[in-house]
Amino acid sequence: MAKVKRIEGVLSPVVTPFERDYAPDAERFVRHCRWLLKSGCAGLAVFGTNSEANSMSVAEKRALLEALVAGGVPASALMPGTGHSALSDSVELTRAAVKLGCAGVLMLPPFYYKGVSDEGLYRNFSEVIERVGDERLQLYLYHIPPVSQVPISLALIERLLSKYPGIVAGVKDSSGDWANTKAMLDNFSKGGFDVFAGSEEFLLANMRGGGKGCITATGNVNPGAIDNVYRNWRAPEADKLQAAITATRKIVMKHPGIPALKATIAHFGNDAQWKTCRPPLVELNSSQERELMTELKSSNFSMPGLA
Amino acid sequence: MAKVKRIEGVLSPVVTPFERDYAPDAERFVRHCRWLLKSGCAGLAVFGTNSEANSMSVAEKRALLEALVAGGVPASALMPGTGHSALSDSVELTRAAVKLGCAGVLMLPPFYYKGVSDEGLYRNFSEVIERVGDERLQLYLYHIPPVSQVPISLALIERLLSKYPGIVAGVKDSSGDWANTKAMLDNFSKGGFDVFAGSEEFLLANMRGGGKGCITATGNVNPGAIDNVYRNWRAPEADKLQAAITATRKIVMKHPGIPALKATIAHFGNDAQWKTCRPPLVELNSSQERELMTELKSSNFSMPGLA
Repeated sequence: MAKVKRIEGVLSPVVTPFERDYAPDAERFVRHCRWLLKSGCAGLAVFGTNSEANSMSVAEKRALLEALVAGGVPASALMPGTGHSALSDSVELTRAAVKLGCAGVLMLPPFYYKGVSDEGLYRNFSEVIERVGDERLQLYLYHIPPVSQVPISLALIERLLSKYPGIVAGVKDSSGDWANTKAMLDNFSKGGFDVFAGSEEFLLANMRGGGKGCITATGNVNPGAIDNVYRNWRAPEADKLQAAITATRKIVMKHPGIPALKATIAHFGNDAQWKTCRPPLVELNSSQERELMTELKSSNFSMPGLA
Repeated sequence: MAKVKRIEGVLSPVVTPFERDYAPDAERFVRHCRWLLKSGCAGLAVFGTNSEANSMSVAEKRALLEALVAGGVPASALMPGTGHSALSDSVELTRAAVKLGCAGVLMLPPFYYKGVSDEGLYRNFSEVIERVGDERLQLYLYHIPPVSQVPISLALIERLLSKYPGIVAGVKDSSGDWANTKAMLDNFSKGGFDVFAGSEEFLLANMRGGGKGCITATGNVNPGAIDNVYRNWRAPEADKLQAAITATRKIVMKHPGIPALKATIAHFGNDAQWKTCRPPLVELNSSQERELMTELKSSNFSMPGLA
């Protein structure tokens, strides 16, 4: 079977709604995913860091993924996170994603042990690829050392790319270090390796350097404006558009990111249940929430069509 | 139903044998556990950091736990690690352990997000306790900030102890910071909170301070000598015995710990398959292995009854 066309543009690592008892809320999840695709997202990187993915079991994630497809979200727009600390969990969820026809998977390195070798990480990714054993697999590496504490080096990318060309499809760089993103672009982007910035702050620079878009937390609340930068990156007003989305990001990210995104969706969607985070995360307190909403409103921020 | 008697003494965080294809090897696992209990271990902290526990799925761990009990290892000697980054995984494995009659569980905090609040960690442990909902549960907190990067503060222990006395049973302190272990002893050990040092290096100090033993990696290979310190901590020769086990530990821990323990078991048990580590860990290279064996033999180290 043929591979699904690769996603380019703005992807949102979709925040996961929970019910009062912390159970994943498939209905709200499907609704938010549909809104994102209508509002500027080219794809959905469900089960990312911002999705509280690692606070959920593989079974919970499989059920959400199936609910999305059943709810009319095209699998060709999906790039679920499938990397776990346990090799066997990574294999299970990756296999399920490929079977559903997802465009790709975004894979964390195993993140419990720190200071592991490139050889050990290579074996991890290689085992997943070999066991899934499906030529439709498109694997995006997920480099987010501030959270995972386990970096993905250029040497590791090179080794994986040379062994699995066509399978190893790209990277999300959430290092926050533009020099690193640039090195990924310079070394690999001409060889069919798609580099996504991990924040819209670097979207314009990434496009100018040969990248394919961004996968960004704030895509959950500001997808239209971010997509506008993506579509107009060659236009004279691109820098001005970029400055505006960076400014919005800074308002949101002044607070703990995931609770702030959820509070924003709750407020602009008029749906308080969205605020719930699964432990160990905690919702914003009321003064943080008030400050965030005041700042967003005074910046003329809106989420058209959400409520 | 009554609680199982609490374990005191030396516990081994049992290393997990894997087959050539990285599948958990239940038969070798049961054999090693039985050897450890015959050789000085009072209990088995299976599924610890040294067990590569977070490299295995919940289903793989449940199967190993059931194999142990079926293989004649008494559940009253078991303190499995059941803390995962996903709340639902922690609940599932803890519930399974309690149902099997395990003496306790050793619980990591959720370890994907860094810099989380005590409130979020409290909610995590509290949710697990409430959902398991079984008065037989004895929960030991697992403080290992060098690996988990998520510490368990004294304030968190105090809050959990005051809400769940009799359930929250103790701690393993793998901070490597004796001042922290001492603070745990001074604050909580008189209230039925059992403090285990995370390394035999602190065994004697921990016993003198009111602790209950140690849970130590090197327990996998040197259980008899470590148990001898535990049994003789009040004896005049205690400091000399302590110096000897610390010296052995230093020989092993000069190398990457888990591969070094596995190489030692492989060598002294004459069973090379033991060397296999699951990715992202990697076995010792041959020069590391040779150096380790040379040093161990010249220190008169042995593993009686293993081969």
